[in-house]
Amino acid sequence: MSQRYELRFSGAGGQGLILAGIIMAEAAAIYDGKQALQSQSYGPEARGGASKSEVIISDDPIDYPKATAVDALLALTQEACDKYSGDLKEGAILLVDSDLVKKIPKGDFLLVGFPIINTAKNEVGRTIVANIVALGAMVALTGVVTKASVEKAVLSRVPEAFRELNLKALQIGFDKAMSARETSFTQMGEEFHLSR
Amino acid sequence: MSQRYELRFSGAGGQGLILAGIIMAEAAAIYDGKQALQSQSYGPEARGGASKSEVIISDDPIDYPKATAVDALLALTQEACDKYSGDLKEGAILLVDSDLVKKIPKGDFLLVGFPIINTAKNEVGRTIVANIVALGAMVALTGVVTKASVEKAVLSRVPEAFRELNLKALQIGFDKAMSARETSFTQMGEEFHLSR
Repeated sequence: MSQRYELRFSGAGGQGLILAGIIMAEAAAIYDGKQALQSQSYGPEARGGASKSEVIISDDPIDYPKATAVDALLALTQEACDKYSGDLKEGAILLVDSDLVKKIPKGDFLLVGFPIINTAKNEVGRTIVANIVALGAMVALTGVVTKASVEKAVLSRVPEAFRELNLKALQIGFDKAMSARETSFTQMGEEFHLSR
Repeated sequence: MSQRYELRFSGAGGQGLILAGIIMAEAAAIYDGKQALQSQSYGPEARGGASKSEVIISDDPIDYPKATAVDALLALTQEACDKYSGDLKEGAILLVDSDLVKKIPKGDFLLVGFPIINTAKNEVGRTIVANIVALGAMVALTGVVTKASVEKAVLSRVPEAFRELNLKALQIGFDKAMSARETSFTQMGEEFHLSR
């Protein structure tokens, strides 16, 4: 990984994107010994349905705390994808909910998609853990934190009664992204395709 | 208020300081129509017991998202007060838990203190809402968001079963700070005193 790694979790308000960001930052900093900064900005651009949270992870002190060249973007809705994919780095990872994000921005990045919300609903059993399914997928795709660290961070942030549910969500997201990525890699060439 | 207002909530891990910051930012941005940025950084300085979250509120876009001249600091522990009071602005507000923060840094600021944790425990009934007691106090002292907006933001962030408890915590914190501030103001002169 590069010295500085920028992640953005985007979708709609109420989808738990801030919590996903906090868990990613705590996995990196508390359990992996890196430096991390987690933030959300609220401005006119955040009006409407789209919402985001950001994490910067670095081996060194983070001098400039604003994400400017995003290495990995999660987009759970089309609106969020449209709004927040403008500053993706060359070669960045774009993870989308393939049921909901159909119009993919042009650019040189690795696109990975699977039905994230539906996976939470049907395979984990609760729509509300879609953020943790997505988090597991982001961990698998970026490799910026270890799986063990993110598991610990999830456990420390989630009420005891929901620990098993959240660990299951994390694991399923991780596995789905790993398979989806395999498919994506074999399709890399002139253009990328959504892998289902 | 000035164009840009910086708040820092500090204490120990697990005290809900991030949530307090998120609610403050959402009150400012979603309900008061301002711009806001909420962040937490995790670095070597965050190792140990001290923990903080920050909110920047502005009428204009927030170009530099790092707090550099803090207008208002909450310190729930002595360690946090020692660590995070270094960049307080001249004339800043310093709100401390007066049971736990006994060594007050030198500087030209308005000190307000009351037993925040104990108020949550004994007057609201749950230690866990100390963050919301503190939030109510910060709202009263800074005036940077309206009370109505922070109430709405609390309601949107807190599970339904705990709404009444949290609104009570917010109100008590607000009232305590208002009385404490009165006392502080009358004592302003050569030095500030903890008001109990």
